[in-house]
Amino acid sequence: LLGDTSYPAGSLVLEAGCGVGAKTITLASRNPGARFVCTDISAESLAKAKEHNLDNVTFQQADIFAMPFPAAMFDHVFVCHVLEHLTDPVAALRKLRPVLKPGGTITVIEGDHGSCYWHPETLASQTVWQCLIRAQARLGGDSLIGRRLFPLLTEAGFADVRVSPRAVYCDASRQDWVDGFVRKTIIAMVEGVKTQSLELGLTDEQTWRQGIDDLNQVADRSDGTFNYMFFKAVAER
Amino acid sequence: LLGDTSYPAGSLVLEAGCGVGAKTITLASRNPGARFVCTDISAESLAKAKEHNLDNVTFQQADIFAMPFPAAMFDHVFVCHVLEHLTDPVAALRKLRPVLKPGGTITVIEGDHGSCYWHPETLASQTVWQCLIRAQARLGGDSLIGRRLFPLLTEAGFADVRVSPRAVYCDASRQDWVDGFVRKTIIAMVEGVKTQSLELGLTDEQTWRQGIDDLNQVADRSDGTFNYMFFKAVAER
Repeated sequence: LLGDTSYPAGSLVLEAGCGVGAKTITLASRNPGARFVCTDISAESLAKAKEHNLDNVTFQQADIFAMPFPAAMFDHVFVCHVLEHLTDPVAALRKLRPVLKPGGTITVIEGDHGSCYWHPETLASQTVWQCLIRAQARLGGDSLIGRRLFPLLTEAGFADVRVSPRAVYCDASRQDWVDGFVRKTIIAMVEGVKTQSLELGLTDEQTWRQGIDDLNQVADRSDGTFNYMFFKAVAER
Repeated sequence: LLGDTSYPAGSLVLEAGCGVGAKTITLASRNPGARFVCTDISAESLAKAKEHNLDNVTFQQADIFAMPFPAAMFDHVFVCHVLEHLTDPVAALRKLRPVLKPGGTITVIEGDHGSCYWHPETLASQTVWQCLIRAQARLGGDSLIGRRLFPLLTEAGFADVRVSPRAVYCDASRQDWVDGFVRKTIIAMVEGVKTQSLELGLTDEQTWRQGIDDLNQVADRSDGTFNYMFFKAVAER
């Protein structure tokens, strides 16, 4: 996802919504000549992000809807897995645009839970996956946002919006991906909404267990395959 | 889809299920030093394929389940949009494997209708898309076969199976794709099962019209986006 993102030496880059710094580490180490200002609304996340001790990064607590920066301060803006959590992603993008220099670029990366399918696909595994989508929707976000990056950035006033899909495909010949993506990312993410899904009545305990078992089968079986799509957009102020 | 398929001069390549030669034209012209034997079960399709007058291609009527070729005759086999129509794709692959020389490769390309999603997504547009999947299933095929290329080739005895996803993404900045893929391929394909869908009672006339209108909106609107995934597999005998 980040392989084709590079910032020239001397660039000043805003990462809005850095969380615990998962992407910051990669960005900062791959672009040692650039300086990064990384913001998040959560002081707790920022405290963890600071533990990475990155020389070319300054962390700062800030609300994405109220950026405390002067106009045209940054050469580039980077936003990853943030918009999916917001009730009004266009409003956030509109707040980010002015802090970019004219000609500066914004890079936005999001997933799309509606892009996900697998083999073998069972009713129970589809049900627990829909629980994840619906549970996230209850929190006000949109986990199907990847497909909307083009209209969102266009509506927010950005120019020359270019979106590219980034497919993740896993089968038994790619055990590192099966383990790192299917088991430790996807299934872990679904398991994270178990309590909420049962409390909301989105499914019952037995279907839940069956669905998680079935997803694990996709990872464990020699004939299992799994697909997910991320989207990466680059646009100009 | 064919950009990374090339055959060395002197290769003898079997294209099984060439239809009217849509892919044959590209393969034959991009690989002028290779010779192609292209088969199809339909004499009518072959007659159309022959009209392309390709120097390095021999057309021959043949059933994929009864290939009239000696063992180890071909350096490579190419199969595109064929397995989705078969009730027993593994059996077909098992029939193709012996005609390959040891170390020869098979290339298989298929779509996956379950990979398809768009924005804005409406209930009616989802319904007509499901009609396409269900109408094709009634004919004995599997339009969700792309995700299964790895297990199918493995089960048929092929070695070193490598599958890669090929995403098609369209938005208003890519009008050539919107027109060529969304309008002329996807919507045309859905419209092709209208009579069958209504006769089978998969939906009603009003929902059908609304669904087609909604799909056309995806193509027409400035905020529409569309996604589809093809899969390409390469394996050794």
